[in-house]
Amino acid sequence: MASIPLQQHYQERIARVLTEAIQSLDELAPELKAAMEYGLLQGGKRVRPMLVYASGELLGQADTAALDAAAAAVECIHAYSLIHDDLPAMDDDDLRRGQPTVHKAFSEATAILAGDALQTLAFELISSHQGSLGADRRLRMVQELARASGYGGMCGGQALDMMSEGKAIDRATLERLHRHKTGALIRAAVRLGALCADNMEETHLTALSHYADAIGLAFQVQDDILDITADTQTLGKTQGKDLVQQKSTYPALLGLDGARRLADELHQQALSALADIPYPTQTLEAFAHYIVKRDY
Amino acid sequence: MASIPLQQHYQERIARVLTEAIQSLDELAPELKAAMEYGLLQGGKRVRPMLVYASGELLGQADTAALDAAAAAVECIHAYSLIHDDLPAMDDDDLRRGQPTVHKAFSEATAILAGDALQTLAFELISSHQGSLGADRRLRMVQELARASGYGGMCGGQALDMMSEGKAIDRATLERLHRHKTGALIRAAVRLGALCADNMEETHLTALSHYADAIGLAFQVQDDILDITADTQTLGKTQGKDLVQQKSTYPALLGLDGARRLADELHQQALSALADIPYPTQTLEAFAHYIVKRDY
Repeated sequence: MASIPLQQHYQERIARVLTEAIQSLDELAPELKAAMEYGLLQGGKRVRPMLVYASGELLGQADTAALDAAAAAVECIHAYSLIHDDLPAMDDDDLRRGQPTVHKAFSEATAILAGDALQTLAFELISSHQGSLGADRRLRMVQELARASGYGGMCGGQALDMMSEGKAIDRATLERLHRHKTGALIRAAVRLGALCADNMEETHLTALSHYADAIGLAFQVQDDILDITADTQTLGKTQGKDLVQQKSTYPALLGLDGARRLADELHQQALSALADIPYPTQTLEAFAHYIVKRDY
Repeated sequence: MASIPLQQHYQERIARVLTEAIQSLDELAPELKAAMEYGLLQGGKRVRPMLVYASGELLGQADTAALDAAAAAVECIHAYSLIHDDLPAMDDDDLRRGQPTVHKAFSEATAILAGDALQTLAFELISSHQGSLGADRRLRMVQELARASGYGGMCGGQALDMMSEGKAIDRATLERLHRHKTGALIRAAVRLGALCADNMEETHLTALSHYADAIGLAFQVQDDILDITADTQTLGKTQGKDLVQQKSTYPALLGLDGARRLADELHQQALSALADIPYPTQTLEAFAHYIVKRDY
């Protein structure tokens, strides 16, 4: 990921913001706090917070506190979803990024609660940050995050994924699944960033949404490809797991070459969407490039 | 509960609002939708929504859409917490209100997801309702609900409860546990209702918080008493379960008579707090009475 401008800067920034968010919790329930910290701060690529920052700063003057809150909120939602997805009743994963999953490092009950509390923390952060952003904008950020995370977004996509396991599903269903399960939150990241910017206009939001929809799906297509082509160590999770779990994937539907062509098409769609934005879009372009070319 | 004025009116109103909230979800993931509906609409006393309505209408003109959204949001949080509490890794309950719990009626994975999606729905409802309430007030409602539900409120209290199981804890710890686990959301219900009212002043909010803190704790004390004195059928859950699970309770710490005296004291505190509010408080008085005198 060395090719994304400001990558290290953004990653350090989100690490600091997330650390502060956890440290600001009191000592009421130390084990729960530790599990939340473990699930939130144990690494990860921080793709979503970086998208929040890149999208917000793209449009010029953005409220710093609002951007930090939005980036942290989106990552809290992502982290909670991973903690719950890893549970024995869901994907039953023992490892995440090469480390024991939260229910393995703590307990199943604590993992359920830590996920719950991280979801709440997202809404607390995004509604409570200090900053100059008006209440209208902040309320809209809450709405967008809620819609992207709930039944009509990530949770619904996860349910669709569970319903589809072991079944042959067509390409339209697979796309609907991914657009909800991972696409909605990536779209929210880009939109929340833009909502922090003074200069934001609805036309920017539309263009950014098209960009986000394209890279969100590309991200998933590339994930499917890597599940076949990368080795377990590079991936940090078990290679070939999709096959074992009989999950429908793009390579299974389109062949490996077909999946690669689709990723390239989505890459081009993302770049076309950015052409509608009258600001320098290098960082988001680099992001699109990274998502399609990454090897882990 | 026949003695609470407007009780039937409020219960019908919240049933209608919750039904509409579920029906407005599309058919993306029918099983998840059905599990959310089951967990949310399968009965319950609707104490928290009734408190939202009673508190909001107490102060005169309240925004109807905002009140409905707040009442539904608080009940979504309550319902999600019950679904997750009942999971095998948590309390492992097969029955709730005499019916199979969500993970029994559906699956464990679906129950986890339904809880997650109901939490999100709460924040979606409270941030997105149509109505005349200004964005400042609405944003504050989001903040209050998030703080009451997360680590610093309900989730933290639940963690404290798990930490305390099988241990002898003192009265201060037991009170802290209940003030977080159940008290915070009851307080939020009363405060959210007041925040929907045009006439709301901070002094009302303070008085209502004192009222809510008293009835919130009284509710728990009475729950502990009923676990000993009521039979399983009246209770709709297994009688004596606290004893079996070695949970610390007020009767265990203070004796049954001591617990009853505490409930009466809290009842008086609740009534005193209402005396500071220059509006007719009969409904909230009746509520306090119900909470201490109820037998199920």
